[in-house]
Amino acid sequence: MPEVKSYAAQNAKDPLGPFSISRRQPGDFDVQIEILFCGVCHSDIHQVRNEWGGSMYPMVPGHEIVGRVSQVGSKVTNFKEGDLAGIGCFVDSCRTCASCLDGLEQYCEVHNAATYNSTEMDRKTPTYGGYSKRIVVDEKYTLKISPELDLARVAPLLCAGITTYSPLRQWQVSKGHKVGVLGLGGLGHMAVKLAVSMGAEVTVLSTSPSKEADAKSLGAQNFVVTKNKEAVDPIMNTLDFIIDTVSAQHDLNFYLQMLKRDGTLILLGVPPEAPQLSVFNLIGKRRRVAGSLIGGIKETQEMLDYCAEHQIMSDIEVIPIADINEAYERMMKGDVKYRFVIDMASL
Amino acid sequence: MPEVKSYAAQNAKDPLGPFSISRRQPGDFDVQIEILFCGVCHSDIHQVRNEWGGSMYPMVPGHEIVGRVSQVGSKVTNFKEGDLAGIGCFVDSCRTCASCLDGLEQYCEVHNAATYNSTEMDRKTPTYGGYSKRIVVDEKYTLKISPELDLARVAPLLCAGITTYSPLRQWQVSKGHKVGVLGLGGLGHMAVKLAVSMGAEVTVLSTSPSKEADAKSLGAQNFVVTKNKEAVDPIMNTLDFIIDTVSAQHDLNFYLQMLKRDGTLILLGVPPEAPQLSVFNLIGKRRRVAGSLIGGIKETQEMLDYCAEHQIMSDIEVIPIADINEAYERMMKGDVKYRFVIDMASL
Repeated sequence: MPEVKSYAAQNAKDPLGPFSISRRQPGDFDVQIEILFCGVCHSDIHQVRNEWGGSMYPMVPGHEIVGRVSQVGSKVTNFKEGDLAGIGCFVDSCRTCASCLDGLEQYCEVHNAATYNSTEMDRKTPTYGGYSKRIVVDEKYTLKISPELDLARVAPLLCAGITTYSPLRQWQVSKGHKVGVLGLGGLGHMAVKLAVSMGAEVTVLSTSPSKEADAKSLGAQNFVVTKNKEAVDPIMNTLDFIIDTVSAQHDLNFYLQMLKRDGTLILLGVPPEAPQLSVFNLIGKRRRVAGSLIGGIKETQEMLDYCAEHQIMSDIEVIPIADINEAYERMMKGDVKYRFVIDMASL
Repeated sequence: MPEVKSYAAQNAKDPLGPFSISRRQPGDFDVQIEILFCGVCHSDIHQVRNEWGGSMYPMVPGHEIVGRVSQVGSKVTNFKEGDLAGIGCFVDSCRTCASCLDGLEQYCEVHNAATYNSTEMDRKTPTYGGYSKRIVVDEKYTLKISPELDLARVAPLLCAGITTYSPLRQWQVSKGHKVGVLGLGGLGHMAVKLAVSMGAEVTVLSTSPSKEADAKSLGAQNFVVTKNKEAVDPIMNTLDFIIDTVSAQHDLNFYLQMLKRDGTLILLGVPPEAPQLSVFNLIGKRRRVAGSLIGGIKETQEMLDYCAEHQIMSDIEVIPIADINEAYERMMKGDVKYRFVIDMASL
């Protein structure tokens, strides 16, 4: 099998460094992609550092992958050499469970093959992600990318974009809805752009007054400093939805009270400890708490097409692969607007 | 104002006893009802004993009231002397907020006038509940009761019935759905009857193997002893909804895992401490946690009409008012199938 230049973590503690991996030759249904850009997701750090447990090393992270097709298998019908293509958070799934048949492979009931830190569906062959020059994936799990957009800025749509797009669609967010966005990072900034594009009135909820200008420039109509009681009081009982992108520990009950009757708090991040839920906050206003996980292939393609049509892309800082360890440190401090994207030409 | 024989708590500790209260003469829009039966809800005990704080004494509990109209105001159009009538958990609301205008007076944004342990909308006149010979209520907050049903068995529909009917309707439970019912008390036994009548396949979830025969006789197709791992494993990831009627502390995360993708845990009871919510259990299967509180007047009437059409009533034990303190003690032990109803002729 051909060797492919990559960047890998060898264990939970040492910095990432250059590493060579084997990728399979494209099979009949495979698309081989020369990776041009890969976004850096906070979950890369969690998994590199084994913060969720069970990490498999060597680990080549990265699941916000865009590039150009260099070869296709004999039975591939949707891609040809030279096409732009993308890979998101998974590269295969069982294809037969109820979730897969519903096009919701992210909830595959026998666990899908995550793009890295996982195995192919044979449950033996390790998967390696996008911090790499090349990847080979079945065309069914490969996305079409519009040539109209800035390719580096498209990469984060494959995770941050679909993670926020999917719940907005599932809950049918549209004109007339008031949407709070909690956390203005990689996910949050996409939630603002997408919700605004769908016609919602968006309020960014933040502990930092310094983020107001950024929130407004992303399109948010309102900004509330959540430590300021005078700013918070008027939005209590007013929001239809809150998109909660925060993975740090935080008090869900405070935010629940911002929802009007029948409002929904949509959780996208997993805090380290299970938060407490004041049941009265749900019952007293028929509110709901929901979760959502990335999106299926069909919906991810729909999101990419939607973003192309509406000229929606991530705000990014492009880095060479050699800066990845420093980028991780900056992400830990929230020092990035709003996503690092690795220029794979630097590898 | 005429004096009316009642039964009241004078403080949080002493037993309830006979007491005389004043009720207004019926105004132009009022219906005066001679109370025939009043159900005994667990929230009567919470409020009598001041377990939720802020209790107002003397307190005449009872919000599952049925009786016969003895007088109507000059502008009353929907009731006439001799009609059967019912009163549920509230006797008035602001009538102008968004929730009241939507017919969801239970969520009245300036707080409705609860049937007891509250005040009329003047925020001065105390309200007294159904442990009483008579009540006077605006016809807009008075329900029509079918003469086709056993009146004593209808009383608990005014709280236990609507509390379970409303979420089943809101979440559109119907044929093809698998519904778990957690807790087989006043609320739970109504949830079983109503969900079965709507075509759902119902599984009673209980810690007590002894309840299986009862669950089946109420119409539940399945019964699972939740302490028995072999019984629980097959229902993991299978239920569309769980109606959770338990007010005691319990682990929501265990039950969440019984829900399939897109399943909803509907909380009707408020445990003493805020339960912890494993966010992963939501995100990993796009599950939801929701709350629901009784129902509005329009939906309560719809429920009463539905129950008349489907011959659905509560299973009850009729008691004389003098036994109310003993009944409270038995309820604390779960020793009632499934609702005590006071025969007000005994007062």
